[in-house]
Amino acid sequence: MTVSVVRPSPSATGALTPLSAADTQIHGGFWGGRLRVNRERTIPHGLEQLRASGAVENLRAAATGGTYRAGADSSGATFPFLDSDVYKWLEAAGWELGRQRDPALESAAAELIDLIADAQRPDGYVNSYVQTRDGVPAQDLAWGHEFYCIGHLIQSAVAWHRAIGDDRLLGIAQRAADWLDREFGPDGRDGIDGHPQIEPGLVELYRVTGERRYLTLAARMIDLRGHGLLGHGRFGPAYWQDHRPVRDATEVAGHVVRQLYLDCGAVDVAVELGDEELLTAVRRRWDDMEQTRTYLTGGLGSRHKDEAFGDPYELPPDRAYAETCAAISHVFLSWRLLLATGDSRYSDVIERTMYNGILAGVSIDGTRFRYVNPLQRRTRRVWEEDRYGERAAWFPCACCPPNVMRTLSSWQQYLATTDPDGVQLHQYAASRVRAAVSAGIVVLSVETAYPWDGRITVRIEESPDHPWTLSLRVPGWARSGEFTAAGESERCVEGGGTVRRRRRWQVGDQATLELDLPIEVVRPHPQVDAVRGCVAVRRGPLVYCLESADLSPGVELEDLEWDPAAGTPQLSSASPFGDSVTTIDLPLRRRSDRPSGGGAMTVPAVPYFAWGHRGTGAMRVWIPRAGL
Amino acid sequence: MTVSVVRPSPSATGALTPLSAADTQIHGGFWGGRLRVNRERTIPHGLEQLRASGAVENLRAAATGGTYRAGADSSGATFPFLDSDVYKWLEAAGWELGRQRDPALESAAAELIDLIADAQRPDGYVNSYVQTRDGVPAQDLAWGHEFYCIGHLIQSAVAWHRAIGDDRLLGIAQRAADWLDREFGPDGRDGIDGHPQIEPGLVELYRVTGERRYLTLAARMIDLRGHGLLGHGRFGPAYWQDHRPVRDATEVAGHVVRQLYLDCGAVDVAVELGDEELLTAVRRRWDDMEQTRTYLTGGLGSRHKDEAFGDPYELPPDRAYAETCAAISHVFLSWRLLLATGDSRYSDVIERTMYNGILAGVSIDGTRFRYVNPLQRRTRRVWEEDRYGERAAWFPCACCPPNVMRTLSSWQQYLATTDPDGVQLHQYAASRVRAAVSAGIVVLSVETAYPWDGRITVRIEESPDHPWTLSLRVPGWARSGEFTAAGESERCVEGGGTVRRRRRWQVGDQATLELDLPIEVVRPHPQVDAVRGCVAVRRGPLVYCLESADLSPGVELEDLEWDPAAGTPQLSSASPFGDSVTTIDLPLRRRSDRPSGGGAMTVPAVPYFAWGHRGTGAMRVWIPRAGL
Repeated sequence: MTVSVVRPSPSATGALTPLSAADTQIHGGFWGGRLRVNRERTIPHGLEQLRASGAVENLRAAATGGTYRAGADSSGATFPFLDSDVYKWLEAAGWELGRQRDPALESAAAELIDLIADAQRPDGYVNSYVQTRDGVPAQDLAWGHEFYCIGHLIQSAVAWHRAIGDDRLLGIAQRAADWLDREFGPDGRDGIDGHPQIEPGLVELYRVTGERRYLTLAARMIDLRGHGLLGHGRFGPAYWQDHRPVRDATEVAGHVVRQLYLDCGAVDVAVELGDEELLTAVRRRWDDMEQTRTYLTGGLGSRHKDEAFGDPYELPPDRAYAETCAAISHVFLSWRLLLATGDSRYSDVIERTMYNGILAGVSIDGTRFRYVNPLQRRTRRVWEEDRYGERAAWFPCACCPPNVMRTLSSWQQYLATTDPDGVQLHQYAASRVRAAVSAGIVVLSVETAYPWDGRITVRIEESPDHPWTLSLRVPGWARSGEFTAAGESERCVEGGGTVRRRRRWQVGDQATLELDLPIEVVRPHPQVDAVRGCVAVRRGPLVYCLESADLSPGVELEDLEWDPAAGTPQLSSASPFGDSVTTIDLPLRRRSDRPSGGGAMTVPAVPYFAWGHRGTGAMRVWIPRAGL
Repeated sequence: MTVSVVRPSPSATGALTPLSAADTQIHGGFWGGRLRVNRERTIPHGLEQLRASGAVENLRAAATGGTYRAGADSSGATFPFLDSDVYKWLEAAGWELGRQRDPALESAAAELIDLIADAQRPDGYVNSYVQTRDGVPAQDLAWGHEFYCIGHLIQSAVAWHRAIGDDRLLGIAQRAADWLDREFGPDGRDGIDGHPQIEPGLVELYRVTGERRYLTLAARMIDLRGHGLLGHGRFGPAYWQDHRPVRDATEVAGHVVRQLYLDCGAVDVAVELGDEELLTAVRRRWDDMEQTRTYLTGGLGSRHKDEAFGDPYELPPDRAYAETCAAISHVFLSWRLLLATGDSRYSDVIERTMYNGILAGVSIDGTRFRYVNPLQRRTRRVWEEDRYGERAAWFPCACCPPNVMRTLSSWQQYLATTDPDGVQLHQYAASRVRAAVSAGIVVLSVETAYPWDGRITVRIEESPDHPWTLSLRVPGWARSGEFTAAGESERCVEGGGTVRRRRRWQVGDQATLELDLPIEVVRPHPQVDAVRGCVAVRRGPLVYCLESADLSPGVELEDLEWDPAAGTPQLSSASPFGDSVTTIDLPLRRRSDRPSGGGAMTVPAVPYFAWGHRGTGAMRVWIPRAGL
């Protein structure tokens, strides 16, 4: 059984095949630590919060005739999509159980699964918001999130099926999908959800069950979109990608997560149906998005008003919305495109987004989350307009925290793929990888202190007695490096790509990719108006930032400018976060027109994912250049 | 009878006294043309739109038991504040009738006044939104805008009283205010409106009627604010300035128009009660706002989400909200502070804001309006998120158009003031000014082609036989100039201020202020991150911008950079708008990395108020500097 987060069917088109979730284990290093925190701290915290917020009780209320209560923010709005957070938590729990059994987690999850089963109506419909009201489904497809919730239910069910072969959720999900197919399938009404998510869910359900009508329904919903079914709404039809047919739109538009979940579904449909036109449309949008609308952190979304993409090159650092869920959807889509095409640029984006845009969304201790991920926060700020601007234990609209959980719980699945010729390593972590290639079974052991160190050592633990190809991604940020395998070395191409070695590998053979990890001071694209005249600091996949917590008393972040003449950045000898995080000593100049006076000072730059852990002070990724 | 837009009572504190509306006449030049268009085109257009949109019918419905229908935008939202647009239109009509009688306008206005009278309940309450529903007032003070509408009704009534002594509206307004005082006065409930406006309205009603309880009620509402009466709302308590007491808040915050209408009321209360603490609080906020949150155009408001101020120095040009109403409220507040203090900086802000932030809000032909006034619009834009982004004949939320009308109809009242010692000229227009000073009656004739030319000639047409002081504002933008009166000349101080001459003026005496009007290429404040590395072009009070309409085919606005080596800006010999608008030929450099290739080209920069009249192309005020 091949089980992983996205698993195209055998008949699908595509360049690469994912590994089974259980066939990759991360056992240490950077990611080992993050996954342990996710499992031991974040997931239990999430369950507590789901209980305390009422999201769990809503499902009980749906079964017993109670009242929907969770999610009301202080404005009095009630969110109708809270079931989805329970489903996403269950998905995380499913992947974790696949990684390692845990009776306590199993029994907590079982209680939730039972609640969902109890809440589900005999006709298969399940939605605690609607069921605790008049019980009439699909009265408000534009805003109701009913299909969206079913989509997350399916994703969760698929995870349980693939991770541990437990099909209790799958039965529930299938009954819900059958209800949907009866009501909105080819013989039913035309209807799409204002928030896509059902589309990739249905394709994955098809992949697991082999029931082709789910694929047909997903394809139907993809093609129904863009014809005005959802109406104008509060933010215009582009907000929910209903302004143009999915295969015609040349650019991403509107609400970021809606756009990218939709495009995930479009790729899933395209590869299953061999629909090149549809795949090409998504790839074109992705290319344009990377070129014109992506933050240095892999974050997406420039506008608070409608959680939306801005115009091309509209990338304000201070008002970056860059929702954690948007970064997650960025990974989900890029992974699908990687499988479809084999192009390592997609893995580059996954790497950048995971290390920066997503990890910034959860605290290092795993129990506080960011919803909005700006690239600048000023010293002087007045009146945060809402509670989504700071790290919090939970949010009234709690989409991001369980989304982080399920992403980290399945992260090991993004490390490697196979094709008939061999194994491809995309992301680097201390791990063990088992893969079936046409020649036989391959087992690799990967040792690395990445991203703090650029050396990745792959040891062959098991290999068939036939030649196969080992491929390693050279990240797009790489300027130089060397790949050595079985005594032969080659220089890596600047700007990334793939190094490959085909041979009859022996147990004990080693391949080493040694990437140079210089500190880079980079300038923005000249059309990004909002950060003109600034520089940012990167090292390997990590984006760095300055924080006011590291400044001397009396100095404000706005006093500081980058002047190459002030010195050369160096790795810090000691980090404010201890040995586990490498910081960079950045020589800066104080502006002479500011109260702190002129002169040079050195400030540690910290990885963006670590920002905001020491109070709610100022932060900036982009640093003004001196003398402008 | 002294009649003007804001008229402190004789016992109020304050440095300057406004003239009567009828005592200033603008007869030609720049403003003569704009006022003629406002009277002949904009005001009739406004009446048509108010009728077509249903705002007028709503008042009829309130009287006859019909249905409220206007203002629904395509999202289905219905705005409860549409009566206020009728009131603002009536205010404009009142000022216009004071400037010159017009039977057609009078009869159209009379019909509306009758409708309001019919709609008003016997208890004095009037609000078509509430009356066409359950008729229960004040159920939702946070969002209902009921006091706000009464405030505009009062302002309109005050205008009719002051401009032509017609008190039909005043009776209606006073009955409404009496209802308010019974329900929410010292013997009633504690209540404030989510949108301030009633506060300045009540003080003006006190000034007109002498009824002190209106002043008391305004002061009560000022002091009730900032204690959480309005709740958290969708955007937090700062949105409606309920986060801190009005006399304690040190910075402007939240929704711009709400903040500034509130501060108008606070100044009105402060000067009437001699409340120095309250006045000082407003002045401190104003100073900080000018320093940290004001666009080059005088526009205010950096955030679309909640139409709000941003953090200090958060001034994005592309996402500037800069609502036309916000600029108008900027003038209203600055005028009150000018009268209270006599400080010419307030007149500088009025000038900048009128010529740029407000005039951009209405087309040159007077029939199309802007709600949002950005300082940059890119060539490539996708999916405007709402209909408020472009010039339109009207808006579902139509606050701005009639606000422009009443501002232009009363603009002549902002030109001059008196104090016991003489006459002060603040704004320059071809006009005739009559003023009472302690020495007697003064009549001045002002001739000028301002803002295209820097010469202002003041001729004494009538003067008492005693000395008095003639004062002229030297605008803050002025770098050099000369003031000549009765043969004596003096150089003007750089950076603005006031030139004064005290003498026994004779009929036929002349005073001339000759301001140099160089083309200025200015850099932004170094803390305004969003336009770092850019320059803007100004001449006199006018901000200039580049528009794609003036580019050769194949060149995009984003291709162009400012390079001082490319040449010196010159006044254009011909303007795309004809002789009535002076444009500036700006030598620019094309970026070599763009499709149009490198090289120099000259592009006319056009006044910001004139932008967007030639299609919906790109525009920018801030131009990137070359070589960054």
